[in-house]
Amino acid sequence: MTGEVRPAAIEHDFAKVPATGPAAPVSRALADEVPIAIECNGLAYAVLMATPAAVEELAAGFALGERLIDGVDDIRAIDVNDTGEGILVRLTLARRVAERIADRVRHRTSDASCGLCGVETLAQALRPLPAAAPWDGADAAVFAAYHALRDHQPLNAQTGAVHAAAACTRDGVIRVAFEDVGRHNAFDKLIGSMLLAAQTWDGGFALLTSRCSFELVEKAVLAGCPMLATISAPTRLAVERAAGAGLTLRSLVRADSMLASG
Amino acid sequence: MTGEVRPAAIEHDFAKVPATGPAAPVSRALADEVPIAIECNGLAYAVLMATPAAVEELAAGFALGERLIDGVDDIRAIDVNDTGEGILVRLTLARRVAERIADRVRHRTSDASCGLCGVETLAQALRPLPAAAPWDGADAAVFAAYHALRDHQPLNAQTGAVHAAAACTRDGVIRVAFEDVGRHNAFDKLIGSMLLAAQTWDGGFALLTSRCSFELVEKAVLAGCPMLATISAPTRLAVERAAGAGLTLRSLVRADSMLASG
Repeated sequence: MTGEVRPAAIEHDFAKVPATGPAAPVSRALADEVPIAIECNGLAYAVLMATPAAVEELAAGFALGERLIDGVDDIRAIDVNDTGEGILVRLTLARRVAERIADRVRHRTSDASCGLCGVETLAQALRPLPAAAPWDGADAAVFAAYHALRDHQPLNAQTGAVHAAAACTRDGVIRVAFEDVGRHNAFDKLIGSMLLAAQTWDGGFALLTSRCSFELVEKAVLAGCPMLATISAPTRLAVERAAGAGLTLRSLVRADSMLASG
Repeated sequence: MTGEVRPAAIEHDFAKVPATGPAAPVSRALADEVPIAIECNGLAYAVLMATPAAVEELAAGFALGERLIDGVDDIRAIDVNDTGEGILVRLTLARRVAERIADRVRHRTSDASCGLCGVETLAQALRPLPAAAPWDGADAAVFAAYHALRDHQPLNAQTGAVHAAAACTRDGVIRVAFEDVGRHNAFDKLIGSMLLAAQTWDGGFALLTSRCSFELVEKAVLAGCPMLATISAPTRLAVERAAGAGLTLRSLVRADSMLASG
């Protein structure tokens, strides 16, 4: 839906310092990181630090993960502007979900007038999850996707240190992948792209290069993704939340083995 | 100042799935991740997902990075409670900085009554930084600290996938290090521990295992840290912000080389 707003990688001059011997000039491509403000129906909602590409997809996926919307029909418009200071995404959401915006803002934080305290914010941090879609795929598909993933990481090949999130078919073929300096953003972009294109998971799964934090579990469940595979380790909370929702996890996915839970 | 509130690592049973052959049960230690609500003078300020150790240090370092306080004298009390749902940290800040809390909350987000828009939040995201402390150390110290760091990462040795932040002397000796599932948290804990112990950088530097995002640059500058070294790559914004503040950076620190900027 969107291309790049700004270049995702920028060449920068460094000195390369060896352990012994003189330093030498070197140029290296750096991944960009830009403040992206999400405004919903005219209200500032959040500022994400993200790679400035696929910004509409990012906003759509973020809105789903925040439970501001239930599906693509709740999005009336997405308007993207580069203000120089950063990127402003104006989401216009359907009237039926408009109340959630102020409600979620109020529960994410507080000011003197609403008097929300830390105990209330803790209760909001771990809200109940719906049941996850069941996974009945084969582990061989995960290994296949693992081997294919590198070819879908052009920004990482250029810059290093960016994460990728890929949607894979039941057979482990990568359908689409997104990269970002943040793992949450990469997954939001993937989920948002599927949402905007009205694509479903069809028994497939998501493969992420990162560790598996609890937020990724939440995003997967809310996006109807039947299985989440990550290349690095899960946290205790991610495993617990996934088990609670019935989401199948694969983690520490490597060429020769992976861990299974759920 | 604080020990562990909960265990930072928890054993969990998985099935280890090899690329070929049958799966076998395996136990693995997972890093914990817990919602930690920071309440300032009775107002909910933020919820961090963090490893439940050194929580007072985390809160103190976070408050400095958020510019809620200027130094340890602005902290009147830190009260930590495990509520079951998560950990609640109640910060009592000095009257002279109390106004900043509501002001910062208002600028971090908004509700219908204050009408903050996305353009305003973008302007807040990249506020001017003070000048960084000058760095006149030797690169050999960075290589020395790199080699010593592994011995200061017990949680990572157990669980993998957690970051470390270390304060190093001018000569590259590691004074203290903290680990966390989040790189920002690890650095906040380090900065907070130095703040609470009234320690200064004394011409030393910080070494982090993560990539260098712009927030780490901000935290380093605000903590008076003269140099920030990271094992992974910096983002474009991190390099730009560091150059603007005059903070020396070393990145992609490896046994045989590193990149220098600033």
